[in-house]
Amino acid sequence: MANPTAAMLVIGDEILSGRTRDSNMHYLAKELTKCGIDLQEVRVVSDAPQAIQDAVKALSQRFDHVFTSGGIGPTHDDITADNVASAFGAAIDVREDAREILQAHYVASGLELNAARLRMARIPDGAELIANPVSAAPGFTLHNVHVMAGVPEIFEAMVAGILPQLTGGTPLMSQNLRVHRGEGDIAETLATLAGDFPDLSVGCYPFQRDGAFCVNIVVRGADGARVNAAIARLGQELGL
Amino acid sequence: MANPTAAMLVIGDEILSGRTRDSNMHYLAKELTKCGIDLQEVRVVSDAPQAIQDAVKALSQRFDHVFTSGGIGPTHDDITADNVASAFGAAIDVREDAREILQAHYVASGLELNAARLRMARIPDGAELIANPVSAAPGFTLHNVHVMAGVPEIFEAMVAGILPQLTGGTPLMSQNLRVHRGEGDIAETLATLAGDFPDLSVGCYPFQRDGAFCVNIVVRGADGARVNAAIARLGQELGL
Repeated sequence: MANPTAAMLVIGDEILSGRTRDSNMHYLAKELTKCGIDLQEVRVVSDAPQAIQDAVKALSQRFDHVFTSGGIGPTHDDITADNVASAFGAAIDVREDAREILQAHYVASGLELNAARLRMARIPDGAELIANPVSAAPGFTLHNVHVMAGVPEIFEAMVAGILPQLTGGTPLMSQNLRVHRGEGDIAETLATLAGDFPDLSVGCYPFQRDGAFCVNIVVRGADGARVNAAIARLGQELGL
Repeated sequence: MANPTAAMLVIGDEILSGRTRDSNMHYLAKELTKCGIDLQEVRVVSDAPQAIQDAVKALSQRFDHVFTSGGIGPTHDDITADNVASAFGAAIDVREDAREILQAHYVASGLELNAARLRMARIPDGAELIANPVSAAPGFTLHNVHVMAGVPEIFEAMVAGILPQLTGGTPLMSQNLRVHRGEGDIAETLATLAGDFPDLSVGCYPFQRDGAFCVNIVVRGADGARVNAAIARLGQELGL
């Protein structure tokens, strides 16, 4: 059976203006790969209602899961929850279970659950809450869209909480060879290998070291023995 | 006049699997902001023909510029040029001007311009070359799509080469205030400020420091005096 598919939607002007360097994409990509869910697309959009709704609709139709990051805090520019709800035509308001979580947290912290903070209890009808062990304000899952915070510590804690509840697939096995030659020298060898092992993916990633071009060759596949066989043949052919 | 708009398309399985951490998005975002081109969307797609073509079509129709990163090397998984050509229905083959650039480079390096390397001279009909001062193999601009390498040193050199040729807009001025309070404490103040300065964008970016929640408040706009006025008022209201 094919692995489940996923997309990620990063929401935030601060990423697109270059003010903030996103780290959630790389974290999610690694975690999904570990549990055999294939991340096939990432989109970054601005804090604009139409952009968020269009992306949620497009991605939730095409992929098994959509993971969003950002825009669920208490300020006026936090509009993710409302727009995910709109994308599905779901009603949204302060929900009692979320309000209780926030109230308990703020009572314990000696802070007031004011109108701004209460916005974080706005949860679409029919959504399930995602626990936030860092700062209480929950994320939520509506249909196949998992809505999470953008602050990396909170995003990572939320991902760690929901991934065990999702059905994963076969994790990819991978091996790599580092070769101190240019891509152009080994391209034919790689193309032939990829043709002979159609069940594997053969990737070639150039980088520079001390002014010389080198490549990392990465062979990936569900069957570890096949990956080993391909890497062994490659080593022989490249005289390593 | 409104600033020109842009999207970025990152192409590569290695980003989506978490093997490689993309850095080109953050670089491009900062550079575009400096010259007043508004980056409004980023997509990351896999090395799959349909995914690349669909994204190129969608983004090139909606934005003034599309900048792509990745997939223009000599190996079998480098399929960006062919699929950008397909997206526009343009023919593509080895082009003489690109072949000459490669030949001169490989002659000078004492390397052979073999069949794999010659693939990097495949340029769509009607495209203009983008210079590659690092490793010679050119990128290209076809219509409003600028196709560049994924290796960060090359991507950055190509961006530096083409940005001066594009018509920019008004660069955004921005100022920020760092506040050692929770978002929820200052959300109302910010919402009122954003309402009173509709020509500015007021962003609020929480982070954690030694277990305490802090925020960076960023005020952006084309008019520096207005940005200053908003920041001054904010400082007064927050008692800073």
